Amino acid sequence: MTRLATDAAGVFVIAVTPFHPDGRIDLESCDRMVDFYLDAGATGLTVLGIMGEAPKLTVEESRDVVARILARVDGRVPVVVGVSAPGFAQIATLTAMVMDLGAAGVMVAPPGSLRTDDQIVTYYAQVAELIGDVPFVLQDFPLVTGVQMAPKVIARIVNDLPTCVCLKHEDWPGLEKISALRADGMLNRRISILCGNGGLFLPEEMMRGADGAMTGFAYPEMMVSVIRNCAAGDSDRAQDIFDAYLPLARFEQQPGMGLAIRKYTLARRGVIAHDALRRPGGSLSQKGREEVDRLIARQERRLTELG
Amino acid sequence: MTRLATDAAGVFVIAVTPFHPDGRIDLESCDRMVDFYLDAGATGLTVLGIMGEAPKLTVEESRDVVARILARVDGRVPVVVGVSAPGFAQIATLTAMVMDLGAAGVMVAPPGSLRTDDQIVTYYAQVAELIGDVPFVLQDFPLVTGVQMAPKVIARIVNDLPTCVCLKHEDWPGLEKISALRADGMLNRRISILCGNGGLFLPEEMMRGADGAMTGFAYPEMMVSVIRNCAAGDSDRAQDIFDAYLPLARFEQQPGMGLAIRKYTLARRGVIAHDALRRPGGSLSQKGREEVDRLIARQERRLTELG
Amino acid sequence: MTRLATDAAGVFVIAVTPFHPDGRIDLESCDRMVDFYLDAGATGLTVLGIMGEAPKLTVEESRDVVARILARVDGRVPVVVGVSAPGFAQIATLTAMVMDLGAAGVMVAPPGSLRTDDQIVTYYAQVAELIGDVPFVLQDFPLVTGVQMAPKVIARIVNDLPTCVCLKHEDWPGLEKISALRADGMLNRRISILCGNGGLFLPEEMMRGADGAMTGFAYPEMMVSVIRNCAAGDSDRAQDIFDAYLPLARFEQQPGMGLAIRKYTLARRGVIAHDALRRPGGSLSQKGREEVDRLIARQERRLTELG
Amino acid sequence: MTRLATDAAGVFVIAVTPFHPDGRIDLESCDRMVDFYLDAGATGLTVLGIMGEAPKLTVEESRDVVARILARVDGRVPVVVGVSAPGFAQIATLTAMVMDLGAAGVMVAPPGSLRTDDQIVTYYAQVAELIGDVPFVLQDFPLVTGVQMAPKVIARIVNDLPTCVCLKHEDWPGLEKISALRADGMLNRRISILCGNGGLFLPEEMMRGADGAMTGFAYPEMMVSVIRNCAAGDSDRAQDIFDAYLPLARFEQQPGMGLAIRKYTLARRGVIAHDALRRPGGSLSQKGREEVDRLIARQERRLTELG
Repeated sequence: MTRLATDAAGVFVIAVTPFHPDGRIDLESCDRMVDFYLDAGATGLTVLGIMGEAPKLTVEESRDVVARILARVDGRVPVVVGVSAPGFAQIATLTAMVMDLGAAGVMVAPPGSLRTDDQIVTYYAQVAELIGDVPFVLQDFPLVTGVQMAPKVIARIVNDLPTCVCLKHEDWPGLEKISALRADGMLNRRISILCGNGGLFLPEEMMRGADGAMTGFAYPEMMVSVIRNCAAGDSDRAQDIFDAYLPLARFEQQPGMGLAIRKYTLARRGVIAHDALRRPGGSLSQKGREEVDRLIARQERRLTELG
Repeated sequence: MTRLATDAAGVFVIAVTPFHPDGRIDLESCDRMVDFYLDAGATGLTVLGIMGEAPKLTVEESRDVVARILARVDGRVPVVVGVSAPGFAQIATLTAMVMDLGAAGVMVAPPGSLRTDDQIVTYYAQVAELIGDVPFVLQDFPLVTGVQMAPKVIARIVNDLPTCVCLKHEDWPGLEKISALRADGMLNRRISILCGNGGLFLPEEMMRGADGAMTGFAYPEMMVSVIRNCAAGDSDRAQDIFDAYLPLARFEQQPGMGLAIRKYTLARRGVIAHDALRRPGGSLSQKGREEVDRLIARQERRLTELG
Repeated sequence: MTRLATDAAGVFVIAVTPFHPDGRIDLESCDRMVDFYLDAGATGLTVLGIMGEAPKLTVEESRDVVARILARVDGRVPVVVGVSAPGFAQIATLTAMVMDLGAAGVMVAPPGSLRTDDQIVTYYAQVAELIGDVPFVLQDFPLVTGVQMAPKVIARIVNDLPTCVCLKHEDWPGLEKISALRADGMLNRRISILCGNGGLFLPEEMMRGADGAMTGFAYPEMMVSVIRNCAAGDSDRAQDIFDAYLPLARFEQQPGMGLAIRKYTLARRGVIAHDALRRPGGSLSQKGREEVDRLIARQERRLTELG
Repeated sequence: MTRLATDAAGVFVIAVTPFHPDGRIDLESCDRMVDFYLDAGATGLTVLGIMGEAPKLTVEESRDVVARILARVDGRVPVVVGVSAPGFAQIATLTAMVMDLGAAGVMVAPPGSLRTDDQIVTYYAQVAELIGDVPFVLQDFPLVTGVQMAPKVIARIVNDLPTCVCLKHEDWPGLEKISALRADGMLNRRISILCGNGGLFLPEEMMRGADGAMTGFAYPEMMVSVIRNCAAGDSDRAQDIFDAYLPLARFEQQPGMGLAIRKYTLARRGVIAHDALRRPGGSLSQKGREEVDRLIARQERRLTELG
């Protein structure tokens, strides 16, 4: 099985968890979703992210979802699984389970209790020891975790732990952080930097030295295209495409409603059967759906103009 | 002096505080800034907002800034002054001072210690009693204050306190909140709803029933135009204009860097003399300035295309 | 199997989770611990509390611990199991599992995202619907959960949900809350109020109308004796006993070190084999152990004097 | 005027702010309070602490209180003034004002936005530069500020900034922190460590190497006596006295009610004229007063027994 490595690039889409309206997991939609993401140009997938509905799953359900997605992916792209948990025993158990199933690596966010530089570095050293040779993604998302990692703390983790192969970058203000980590002498090897925030800063992030995105906008083709055009040196074309999708991307990034909007959009596109969120979780009002419909209609017109 | 009333509408720009590079307040730039905002179509101004640099000012400096701005405005539009403070004595003193200087009303955010519905309602009842007949803006900004007010809590405050004339709306997800507050029977009178979030959701907010914006994007003419076109029933034109400015508006809303970006843009436009933030406060890197320059250049092209 | 009911009273000791020095669960110590607690006069036990090491256990380990403890208790006293979790699926699964094993009820703390009165009431209504006829303890612990429930919110939950049979009271300042809940007309039936905070306010809590304690001080006999003397009307004797243990109880309530101190004390008393905390978790320094030893020696002298 | 220095020791009582029942400051009570604290053996005073009612004062009121207290102290002991504020301008203004009035130094808590080690170190470097040669107390109180400073961060601040002469220690678990800071080689000079937490851990703190207390228990004579007995090597006598006061000290440390209890006790002792807290602020119920009365009666009996 391919392991995640420091050359990870492109778009790792963070997959949603499809549910039936009664709250059961919709495994058929998992299949369609995998095909859709890969057809859109995803170079990897990430499942069980902390911002989605993974915390609402039982351990058995988590295993079922991961197994189904891995089976459908069938080695075509690497799959990263989020294993953040309050205790090491849970992290170890979940990591062993998903690596057995064929995951390419795991993603670990810091627990909210960490504060000082040394506490953060020690935590990741313990995690790395715990999971052995499994490659891991360091998730830096202060807005949600409350843990702020200075660039030099990230550098200590990367430089000390060879299994840290990728940074999921989701800090604010984050562009300077990318520049700091890409500066000469900061890291003892180049690792992958994949950015989050729903892709809202993707053009600038790529120009600062990111390798791609790891996030979940319902139009992953936008991120694929932005990254390809940036790679080809055509940052204006990249930004034109980005701008065309931005009104919807902005709308999907609303705290508290984002996931409902994303699922509604994915259902509207035929990717998943239902836009249901598992309880507790809000749903989109009729007005909210009309707002999304309107933005999509405008987006399609704009894309046609762009050619 | 005109007092703020429930018919407040349009764009109340939240003014920045201009500084010299050495940290002194730049009162000359205050004058230019006032003229610029009013020329751009602002229907009101708000000064000493909690998100800007007001907390860095001494009481004397606050008075100087408010006095200078009020003198320059000279009654052309109402000016709201933020008076949020840990204690009632400070709120009372600051309110008396700014009303004497000619402010049209004050804005009060809830202290972060409030949690239960009754605590919030009681707090505003005490504030209203304290400041007497001064009209006030209820600031609802949970992301920063940590205080979540259900629509029915806002309704209790509005229905109980006649001096509560305006809601500064900055919740997430906020669109449903506007709809809830505009629903029949929710409030015993129609109050003004002005929205924040840097204008990032302005078209949708207007269509949900907001009366305008109270926020600080460096191109207030965008907000003015969106609101006018919405009022004229041309929501597509409103959105076209919004979309043209959105790449920059998004960039300016980055947590942690937003104010530096806004000041850089205002200085670039000749509105304020320096883009300096008072310490402690970050500044924009050279790369960050180039990113803003690039977005502005693209924005100008797009606006030319729009006509 | 006996179900937890509104007449729960006395001391429900919150059990620690014993580990071997290498991090494995020490099931033999579970047996000794159960015997010790019951011999000390516990009228119930609570396992998998949110403040201890439950979050460090895998689901399988949680089941093993609960099963072992329930087997040893063998119906002598009711056992409450903490089932707080981010998602309803986990709560439902864990509740079904522990009730099958013979638990008397479950305890549910509010997720930290709840803020408004209605959000809290709705959450518990959904939980109660989810777990059917299983009796539950409402855990009110704002210092840790960040969720503040006004007495009237607790009243709405109790009055609406017949399966809410007990309040685990751990608010600060909490004494007025007990009085408010015991006031005529507040609740439509008398429920059990058991208090936390390591027993640090137990005499006052009992005099305000609490029915006992649900917390984890390493000398549960103190709490048993305080409650018995209060029940017998001898509040001075209750307080004398309380005062004798207070220097140690205070020491054990130090945030961040409390559990290490409790485990050290329980190991010293021969209750559990090791004072090990599972990683990540601090251990007591040599100086810290000497401080505990000194306090215990003084406590024993004082108890001898008391007779 | 005497400046605060690294040899500060004994009890720096944190003074309450006395109010009239109508909310006006009670300056006459300030005089009585100063005399009372000094008669009780205080070696210093601290005013305008962040945990009390200082944030409820206007700048003018703060000056009046500080001036009155300094006049009454009249150089007999050093007086430290809290000057924590969101901005440097306020810190500078307040520092200049209180040093002019005769303060011995200032105390600065970190703003809650600081997270990484370097952010904390940089903040204090900027503060030290700002206030010039004024000696300052570094306030370490994570429970309230949310800022956690590792011992090595404190060491960097102390070692870099000669005007940092004292640590107000109020971390949890804090005993190990004292030991760490007193270990050989940690600091490049010995600074004063004065402990908070209402004196609840004072005997252990002294045995770990603290120099005294800076906190506000309504019986400062307890702290004076504990410290003197510790200094004299009689830790058992120190602990006996501590234990006699502990039931009340514990009661006074209840979050949310502590200040009301302290003021009630001080008024009962004749130190201040009224137990009024300025709004917004809770008051003690009749039951609460009876609880304090009962604890004081028991305390007096116990002290008589002790001799």
